[in-house]
Amino acid sequence: MDDLLQPILDGDRRALSRAITLVESTRPDHRARAAALLDALARNGRQALRIGLSGTPGVGKSTFTEGFGTMLTDQGLRVAVLAVDPSSARTGGSILGDKTRMERLARDPNAFIRPSPSATHLGGVARRTREAIALCEAAGFDVVLVETVGVGQSETVVARMTDLFVLLLAPAGGDELQGVKRGIMEIADLILVNKADGDLKAAASRTVSDYSGALRLMRQRPHDPEGFPKAMPVSAVEGTGLAQAWDEMRTLADWRREHGHWDATRSRQAAYWFEEEVRAGLMARLTEDPATRDRMAELGRDVAEGRTAPAAAAKEMLDALSGPA
Amino acid sequence: MDDLLQPILDGDRRALSRAITLVESTRPDHRARAAALLDALARNGRQALRIGLSGTPGVGKSTFTEGFGTMLTDQGLRVAVLAVDPSSARTGGSILGDKTRMERLARDPNAFIRPSPSATHLGGVARRTREAIALCEAAGFDVVLVETVGVGQSETVVARMTDLFVLLLAPAGGDELQGVKRGIMEIADLILVNKADGDLKAAASRTVSDYSGALRLMRQRPHDPEGFPKAMPVSAVEGTGLAQAWDEMRTLADWRREHGHWDATRSRQAAYWFEEEVRAGLMARLTEDPATRDRMAELGRDVAEGRTAPAAAAKEMLDALSGPA
Repeated sequence: MDDLLQPILDGDRRALSRAITLVESTRPDHRARAAALLDALARNGRQALRIGLSGTPGVGKSTFTEGFGTMLTDQGLRVAVLAVDPSSARTGGSILGDKTRMERLARDPNAFIRPSPSATHLGGVARRTREAIALCEAAGFDVVLVETVGVGQSETVVARMTDLFVLLLAPAGGDELQGVKRGIMEIADLILVNKADGDLKAAASRTVSDYSGALRLMRQRPHDPEGFPKAMPVSAVEGTGLAQAWDEMRTLADWRREHGHWDATRSRQAAYWFEEEVRAGLMARLTEDPATRDRMAELGRDVAEGRTAPAAAAKEMLDALSGPA
Repeated sequence: MDDLLQPILDGDRRALSRAITLVESTRPDHRARAAALLDALARNGRQALRIGLSGTPGVGKSTFTEGFGTMLTDQGLRVAVLAVDPSSARTGGSILGDKTRMERLARDPNAFIRPSPSATHLGGVARRTREAIALCEAAGFDVVLVETVGVGQSETVVARMTDLFVLLLAPAGGDELQGVKRGIMEIADLILVNKADGDLKAAASRTVSDYSGALRLMRQRPHDPEGFPKAMPVSAVEGTGLAQAWDEMRTLADWRREHGHWDATRSRQAAYWFEEEVRAGLMARLTEDPATRDRMAELGRDVAEGRTAPAAAAKEMLDALSGPA
C-alpha cells in the first residue's frame, strides 16, 4: 500500500501536496505510482462540490477566491483551490493560484491552494487537474474550486470536470456584452459581476441586468431549475454578495442532486474522460513505443522524400498497428 | 486501371470533377477507389504553384479570384480554385467558390472552380482538399488557389498544404490592426489590402503602411528572402496591383526553389499529413470496428456507473487494442 494513501484519507495537506506533485510528473515510475494510488483511492465515496471558476485577468479572481474561500472555511468547510492555466503551457509560468494574493486563505488550516504547474500541454493539464480533484475529494475537502482564465478551450475542459460553472465578470457597457463568447454563456451556471462597489456599483447593476436579459433569451437547459442560469452582483473587496452566491450554488446543486442530474452529469463526465484517455493513450503509443516510433520515422522519411504517398504510408502504419480486434 | 486516370492526366475537367466527387465521398467503396486512383497518380511529377488565400467575408475574395485568375489564364496558365470552408461543417452550406460571383472564370476553359462541399467536418475537409489539390496537379494545372475564410484553424490547415499563403484584407484604421490574429500574420507570405480604389484608396495606403511596419517588427523567417513577408495594395474591382502581386508570388516561389525551401516545405508537409492520417486512422478504429466499439461502450458504462475509474478502464481498453508492437 502506498504510504501516501492513509495520510491523504486523513486529510493531511502535505501528503495531498506530494500526491499532486506525483500526478504532475511525467516520469514513468511516478505515473505508475500515481495510477495505483488513484485506483486505491477511487472508490472511497467522498464527493466534494466541484466548482469551475473562470474570469479574465484583472476581473478580481484572486480577491474573489480569497473572500469566498475564507467565508466557506469560516463555516467549517474545507476548501481546495486548483488552477488550470493553459497559458502556462506557452509562457512556462503561471499567474493563477497565486498564494501571495490570497494571504488569509493560504494560511487557513481548512484551505489548500495549489498553483498551476508550469510548462505542461493542455492535454496534460486536463489529466493532472482531474487527478488533483480526485485527490482533494479523497482528502475530504468539501469544496474544490477549479480556476481558469478565459482563453481558448480551457473553460470547456474545466466545465467537463466540475459540477457547477461560475463566470466572474467585470462591470461593462451594454455593448461589450458581445465580448463574452456564446460558448461560455452556455456552460455558465452562475454569472457573477464583480466590483459592485464604489464608483462601479451602478455599472455592475446594469451589467447584471444585461446578462440576466441575455440569459432569459437562451433556451432553458434540462439540468436547470427555474431561474437558472442566473446573473448577480458581488464585491470581492467588500465581501458583499458572496453569501448570496453560495446560497445560489447550493440551491442549484441540491436541485440537481434531487432530480438525478448530479449523478448523470458525473457519469457522463467520467465516460468522456475515459474516452479521452483511450484517445490520448493511442496517440502516445506512436511516440513512446521504440519500434513504432522508428517505423513512423522511417515511413515519414519515405513520404517526405516522395517514395510513398501520405495515404499509402498511413495505411501501412495502421496495418502494422492493428491489434487482435 | 481506373477509367478516370488517363482523362485526368489529359486535363479533362469533367473527369477531374468526378474524381473530386469521389474523394469527397465517405462510402467505403468510393474511398477505396479514390485511394487507388490517388496512388496511381502520385508519382506523375507534376507540381502546381499552390497558393493559400484567406480573407473574411466581405473583403472581396470572389472578385479578387475572378480578376487574378482571369489574368493568369490570359497568360495561358491553367488555374484551379478550391475552397475550404470550415463553416460549412456547421451550416451545411458554403459561400466559398461561388461560381455565380466568378462569371468569367467559371466559363474559362483554362480554369476549374470547385466549391466547398457541404456538411463535412474539418478533418474531412482537410483530407478532401489535399486530395483535390493532388488531382488538380495531376491534371496539369499550373496554379491551384485554395480559398478559406478567416475563422478558426482553417488558415493553419490550408497553410500546411500550400506553397504560398496570401492574406486578403480590407482597408482599416490603424487601431484595427490588432484584429488580425498574430498566428495568421506569422503564416502570411503576402498581405494584399484590397479595395485600393475610389474613396478607400488613401485608407488602403495607410493600411499597407501599418502592416508593412508590423511585418518589419517580426522576426525574419529562414524561408524568406529580404523584404518578405510583404504588404501591398490591390483593387480587385479595377484590376490594379494584381500583376504586381503575381510578380511577388513568383519572386518568392523562385527564391524558395533555388534555396531548397520549396522541396523542404513540401517534404515536411507530406510527413505531417502522413502522421495526421495515422492519428485519424487510429481514432477511426475506436468507432468503426464493431468489437472495439462494443468494448468501448461497455467500459464506458462501467466508468459511468462508477464500477471502474476512467484511467483503469482506459488502460484495459488500450491493452486490448495493443498490436504486435
